[in-house]
Amino acid sequence: MSMRFSALPWRSFPRTVASEKKIPLSGKAGTYGLSALSPSLSALSVPPKPLLRCRASFSTLHDAAPPGEISLPGVEDEMVGYIFGKKKATDVAHSVWKHVVRRGDTVVDATCGNGYDTLAMLRLVADLSGKGRVFGMDIQEEALTNTDSLLTQSLTPSEKELVKLFPTCHSKMEEVIPKDVLVRLVAFNLGYLPGGDKEISTVSETTLLALEAAGRIIEPGGLISAVVYVGHPKGREEFEAVQAFASGLSTEDWVCCKLQMLNRPLAPVPIFMFKR
Amino acid sequence: MSMRFSALPWRSFPRTVASEKKIPLSGKAGTYGLSALSPSLSALSVPPKPLLRCRASFSTLHDAAPPGEISLPGVEDEMVGYIFGKKKATDVAHSVWKHVVRRGDTVVDATCGNGYDTLAMLRLVADLSGKGRVFGMDIQEEALTNTDSLLTQSLTPSEKELVKLFPTCHSKMEEVIPKDVLVRLVAFNLGYLPGGDKEISTVSETTLLALEAAGRIIEPGGLISAVVYVGHPKGREEFEAVQAFASGLSTEDWVCCKLQMLNRPLAPVPIFMFKR
Repeated sequence: MSMRFSALPWRSFPRTVASEKKIPLSGKAGTYGLSALSPSLSALSVPPKPLLRCRASFSTLHDAAPPGEISLPGVEDEMVGYIFGKKKATDVAHSVWKHVVRRGDTVVDATCGNGYDTLAMLRLVADLSGKGRVFGMDIQEEALTNTDSLLTQSLTPSEKELVKLFPTCHSKMEEVIPKDVLVRLVAFNLGYLPGGDKEISTVSETTLLALEAAGRIIEPGGLISAVVYVGHPKGREEFEAVQAFASGLSTEDWVCCKLQMLNRPLAPVPIFMFKR
Repeated sequence: MSMRFSALPWRSFPRTVASEKKIPLSGKAGTYGLSALSPSLSALSVPPKPLLRCRASFSTLHDAAPPGEISLPGVEDEMVGYIFGKKKATDVAHSVWKHVVRRGDTVVDATCGNGYDTLAMLRLVADLSGKGRVFGMDIQEEALTNTDSLLTQSLTPSEKELVKLFPTCHSKMEEVIPKDVLVRLVAFNLGYLPGGDKEISTVSETTLLALEAAGRIIEPGGLISAVVYVGHPKGREEFEAVQAFASGLSTEDWVCCKLQMLNRPLAPVPIFMFKR
């Protein structure tokens, strides 16, 4: 099965992006709100904390571009394709996830955005036993609404049950993920919501707290994956913060690397932190 | 066929390197000198220029380590393996080459070293028509002697005929490669000769000239591949120079990226410059 999704908040390779793909919201999309998430929220033993401002304001984004499209499982050589300018940073991330995540695993989408990563992760963990879980979070209601809508369209009801969405800052992920659960993957897509309010983006301070939290809950053999968008005003600072975090992790326990375009300074940078 | 070779001047992942592998020189190795290269040299219409000092002197190398071993074709997922700390920078480079180089191509090993890249390149271009060619160069006699020895052991005489070795600085590659030949790959392994005189290494000035030359002779669809060893005294400066060169290439014609370990600042960095 080959599903195609629109994806990136910025296109890193304009020559390979044909046209903007609209998020295929269903006719009912307008009626989806956070109320649709209540089953997940009610599963918490404590009510979620008040929303934190994990995203900061800024006024302009000159280099924003329509999202491109990616194809999920079935495509090989994403990393080599990236080197040849034919695949995007998120393709690389998805490709790496496939080598880490197994059916039945618990994974975390720390920045749901429009839900494409959430859906990709669900497809990796879903199995007949119903053991796999995706915990997704975003502080923007619009993001969770879009994610919920995409999941409703793309999944069976029983598959969708495996995804738990929370209107929570990723720095608070430990408050929504059960303490006894080992997490195989925590994925970040850092920047602003594609198609959303461009004055709201993730910021260094809470992203660093979230990375620290991810480091605590990830199991050996697991991965922290971050695609960092450097093209917006706070993007470079956030990239430096993520890079410094990864650089500071013990080589005994972690393998940390980045794939970076050299002649496209605004291209998003995939950073991987693999726990041995 | 699975051949195993010793490879890296520095091991990037000590945990995965079992032991030092000696270069398997034959009993006749001691008798190999530049005289063994005369058939290639005599193919030139002009005598080779006097050797330039493309390598600089320095006194100590505290972090030199025994070379590891790599396995060539047949191993997949080198790039993903690199991310998980299980493959080395040279594995990644070889993996990328395989996606670019075709049988019958002309390729250049700009830094023969002990000949493992030269041999790997020959295996990619060799075909029954005998059209494929490897032009290899190094300013160190010891390097060419070792390369010649490795090729003699590993190849049939007719295969070995496809490799032309020159005691030439890589900045002068255009003087030894016929002008009408389009080159598919120019590969650099920058640093000092593994197992050789550690006071001699490649340096920024001539490496930059060599990169410029490579940029002139590479065909569209071709690749400049550089694995940069940053752990020796001049290594960081050379890395910055190569990175600046790649960053300055036109995005219209080139896709340039690097794969970099973040929590191993001395790990070698593969840099790829793909010509569209």
